[in-house]
Amino acid sequence: MTDTSMTDTSSADAVADARHAEKMKKVQVARARMMATKTVEKGLLIVHTGTGKGKTSAALGMVFRHIGHGMPVAVVQFTKAESFVTGEALLLRRFPDLCTLAIMGDGFTWDTQDRAADIASARAAWELSKEFIRDDRHAMVLLDELNIVLRYGYLPVEEVVDFLKAETPPGKHVVITGRNAPAELVTMADLVTEMTLVKHPFRDGVKAQKGIEF
Amino acid sequence: MTDTSMTDTSSADAVADARHAEKMKKVQVARARMMATKTVEKGLLIVHTGTGKGKTSAALGMVFRHIGHGMPVAVVQFTKAESFVTGEALLLRRFPDLCTLAIMGDGFTWDTQDRAADIASARAAWELSKEFIRDDRHAMVLLDELNIVLRYGYLPVEEVVDFLKAETPPGKHVVITGRNAPAELVTMADLVTEMTLVKHPFRDGVKAQKGIEF
Repeated sequence: MTDTSMTDTSSADAVADARHAEKMKKVQVARARMMATKTVEKGLLIVHTGTGKGKTSAALGMVFRHIGHGMPVAVVQFTKAESFVTGEALLLRRFPDLCTLAIMGDGFTWDTQDRAADIASARAAWELSKEFIRDDRHAMVLLDELNIVLRYGYLPVEEVVDFLKAETPPGKHVVITGRNAPAELVTMADLVTEMTLVKHPFRDGVKAQKGIEF
Repeated sequence: MTDTSMTDTSSADAVADARHAEKMKKVQVARARMMATKTVEKGLLIVHTGTGKGKTSAALGMVFRHIGHGMPVAVVQFTKAESFVTGEALLLRRFPDLCTLAIMGDGFTWDTQDRAADIASARAAWELSKEFIRDDRHAMVLLDELNIVLRYGYLPVEEVVDFLKAETPPGKHVVITGRNAPAELVTMADLVTEMTLVKHPFRDGVKAQKGIEF
């Protein structure tokens, strides 16, 4: 009795495995056909927005992938202050030949309380960003939290959009992060992801932790 | 006339700047009060799910932040095959003292077409994951694409959830990625982000590119 039921289970498994193999063969053919249509390589304008976590982290993931492949990158942080030490800055600085890092913010706008200074910082960061985008050396340029600066009106959206349209070299990836991405930027972007907050531990009194938020 | 209008503009600017400073002072006080309630440091169970891009990239961003701070991490990739060279693997391998990397998949399940082998791979990856989670050495453990394996039924969700509840050391961060995160995992997680697809260049025939997707 026990032997028979074991045999039944084994043969049921064998049938399931065979069905799986059959189905996966079809999936493989369909995938191959679909992937054959994906032949274009091009520089992408990538936007990470939304109120969830992971916008900057996901951009950094791509930056570090580039570094892993030996492809040079430039990173401009529009709102981070140099005095605030982040894990990404510590690691990026270990690759001076592959990464140009510019931490251009003065900290949070509610800490500076100086609108004119914030606008000047944003302008300086943007002028540097333009240089990096034009420069053929960098395969990717990350404009971290640019959306925040645009949202506050510290830089005109049209100026940014017009520059990106006119002057981004064909093969270059530009990544822009920050909540409230302007509609004009979303319209012209190739790849847009919205990070949606499902659950956040700040609600339970958990503070920003090293390695997670910075 | 010109002089007067310039003076008007300047004084309007001065008023706007003063208002801004006043408002930001209030924001600063409110922020400080709010941040004072965030005092807890704890190991987090973090889930990145959804159909958008950035789930693995955002997890890698945190992994690299840890490495930047000199905090050891372990990364288990459940579906990537060793033969497929990624930017993250190339970079993580440059930090053997800080990162333990285990690439445990056999590639896509439609390529292996072997359900029994896929289940065995998932099991081996999970057993190793348990060791890394128990091991006090690692500040963070990334279980990359574990959700995919759970979705296919290659590992029982209850087993994973029960282990995480019972055996994750208090200070340790565990990050789980992949679309279709099981409800049980979302329920027990501290931090859940859904990456939502707004726009993807695959639709325009753009292929997976080095530094972006891998």
